[in-house]
Amino acid sequence: MTKIVMKFGGTSVESTEKITDVANRVKGEKENGHDIVVVVSAMGKATDELSKLAFELADSPSKREMDMLLSSGEQVTMALLSLKLNAIGVEAISLTGAQAGLITDSVHRNAKVMKMDPSKIDGLLAANKVVIVAGFQGISEAGEITTLGRGGSDTTAVAIAASIEAEICDIYTDVDGIYTSDPRYIESARKLEQLEYDEMLELANLGAGVLHPRAVEFAKNYKVPLRVRPSFKDGEGTILKEEVDVENNLVVRGVAFESDIVRLTIEYEIPFNGSLASIFTTLAANHINVDIIVQSIVEGVKPAVSFSIKKESLSEAITVLETHKQALGFTFADFEVGLSKVSIVGSGMVSNPGVAAQMFDRLRKENIPVKMVSTSEIKVSVVVPQQNMIEAANALHDEFELALTHQSV
Amino acid sequence: MTKIVMKFGGTSVESTEKITDVANRVKGEKENGHDIVVVVSAMGKATDELSKLAFELADSPSKREMDMLLSSGEQVTMALLSLKLNAIGVEAISLTGAQAGLITDSVHRNAKVMKMDPSKIDGLLAANKVVIVAGFQGISEAGEITTLGRGGSDTTAVAIAASIEAEICDIYTDVDGIYTSDPRYIESARKLEQLEYDEMLELANLGAGVLHPRAVEFAKNYKVPLRVRPSFKDGEGTILKEEVDVENNLVVRGVAFESDIVRLTIEYEIPFNGSLASIFTTLAANHINVDIIVQSIVEGVKPAVSFSIKKESLSEAITVLETHKQALGFTFADFEVGLSKVSIVGSGMVSNPGVAAQMFDRLRKENIPVKMVSTSEIKVSVVVPQQNMIEAANALHDEFELALTHQSV
Repeated sequence: MTKIVMKFGGTSVESTEKITDVANRVKGEKENGHDIVVVVSAMGKATDELSKLAFELADSPSKREMDMLLSSGEQVTMALLSLKLNAIGVEAISLTGAQAGLITDSVHRNAKVMKMDPSKIDGLLAANKVVIVAGFQGISEAGEITTLGRGGSDTTAVAIAASIEAEICDIYTDVDGIYTSDPRYIESARKLEQLEYDEMLELANLGAGVLHPRAVEFAKNYKVPLRVRPSFKDGEGTILKEEVDVENNLVVRGVAFESDIVRLTIEYEIPFNGSLASIFTTLAANHINVDIIVQSIVEGVKPAVSFSIKKESLSEAITVLETHKQALGFTFADFEVGLSKVSIVGSGMVSNPGVAAQMFDRLRKENIPVKMVSTSEIKVSVVVPQQNMIEAANALHDEFELALTHQSV
Repeated sequence: MTKIVMKFGGTSVESTEKITDVANRVKGEKENGHDIVVVVSAMGKATDELSKLAFELADSPSKREMDMLLSSGEQVTMALLSLKLNAIGVEAISLTGAQAGLITDSVHRNAKVMKMDPSKIDGLLAANKVVIVAGFQGISEAGEITTLGRGGSDTTAVAIAASIEAEICDIYTDVDGIYTSDPRYIESARKLEQLEYDEMLELANLGAGVLHPRAVEFAKNYKVPLRVRPSFKDGEGTILKEEVDVENNLVVRGVAFESDIVRLTIEYEIPFNGSLASIFTTLAANHINVDIIVQSIVEGVKPAVSFSIKKESLSEAITVLETHKQALGFTFADFEVGLSKVSIVGSGMVSNPGVAAQMFDRLRKENIPVKMVSTSEIKVSVVVPQQNMIEAANALHDEFELALTHQSV
């Protein structure tokens, strides 16, 4: 029998009707002859509602007690799904994270998986039961209930899939799969059949929460094939794996974009009595996420460094820089709002040096000014004016022929 | 430090406002210098709402999964209370039944406490923490989550009190304590200061769910002083113990009554080719609860046996009797509806043989016909017409001077 893990998020189990649909879907897979582990999140808005109660009682509720509180949410879903499966003739049993053997460190609200002991689940699968496990939660060595933080249920599913050596870990969502770009804005965006883990990590914001990066990293480390599939319709979704099939090995696989970017620029004298590192260390210490950094040293002009942050961090970044400019030894020069970031992603770039040039050339032809550039082995990002963002994304989607279905990626 | 257990039921924790009130009450007791364990039920109607979801999904939901489902309810309450206590400066920690060490048998939905290991709680009390434990739930030796059935949170509180050798187990409720009779009907009913466990068991229906008989039996077996107290006002409530103080040792301590009683009569020939035992065995096998049984053998009249049941069981009882009358060898004779049961309770009766006579005498003076009689060591019950029930209860309450405050019982 092939072992598979099926993970359903909160919106897929938000009502008894939807839980019934999930039960029927699980029954179908069981009848296909698979050994099945189902991982579930809390129903719909249950976690938010529990959090709301907590914050009515305490401004900064104990993290340990928040884990105790929130972990009750998945317990409800898994019991309901299990009793529905049993009612329709599928032998099922639900397990808390602790019962399933998911051991974490003891960092409440953001615990890391330390160990996943598959013996309990394997024993139940051998007894022909569908095993339903609470996502998001585990237990520390000290016996404390913990939760895994954002995207935790995806991580649970991947950890279980790795431990029982499942053939595939299916993440059911309300989207059809991962697209070449955001179909809400890029009309010709096309669903990908396959994608590499690293590409998924770079494209994370394309899927807008479809899959949490931590789960993707976990899948990558343990080489668990992950599939993103639609919960309530047919469709093969998108498979994530180490390397996509050779015939699909295109250079660029997706175009991502992000609005509300701000560029900050600071100037300094040479010799610089501070250090660039200390500037960014100070920003990080104040939880300001810096994305692209560009340093320019041009003859006859003061040396400067520019970096991009999200607009929501702007006022705090300025405060931090002003507060520390004496100590750090620089002059705060300028900032530019109304920017956006557009990226092309594809693991084939590393062996195709002309890709960045092709990107800049196309943007030049479209008369879109490029304010900053950043490259990695599988990604090239440019910062462009926000009013050009969708135009740039469409142009690049076209330039790298992502819409063509004969390139079945 | 004196150890005390404080138990709060669902209505006492039904909202964040009430949880705040409970937290303040716990804080007060902590400041009085006690070591405190708090046992909580699920919030208000939470258990009912979870059950409703389950029955939307399955006609007869798996008992194991119902336990998994329902046990999430207390987990919410205990976490909320704990984070509130921490927020108001009282170090607190919540524990599931399993974490607290409450081991049960494996009868899901109606588990019995097998063992309560106090080591975890004692360790936390020693570290000066208020320990909050989920009522109603435990864990079997096999690691399965179980629930204790009706009144389960009371039983949890008593089991913990016994294991940590608490000075007292306070059951907080929405009533002031246990009364000599139901104050909604008997105007002169008076709150009792003390009551014996056995009397409480007999008076159970006086308190209408104030305290579950199983918890009272548990307290009796382990000699745990139990106190029923009002949640949201001052008042010493009623203390239950092995023996009440000598100065309070009245003969009769309470008058209980119950409406909607039916009397069934069956006749048989002598020699009886069946047996009376087999009639009642058959009724019990069909879950029909028989209360009072009276057999009459009078010269020249067919022998008969009468017994009382609740009105809601009447149609089923008649069906069962008709179905089995051939096999059991009797004639179904008669039934009488519109009856009620009135009882006097008091542990002093055993050494005061005149009590029953005094009761009958008073009822005769009031012209209230007595249809059936049943006596135990600490109780005398009579079946009277329903229209005389309150009149009878008032008369007996008066007859045994239960309203008199100088008899501070």
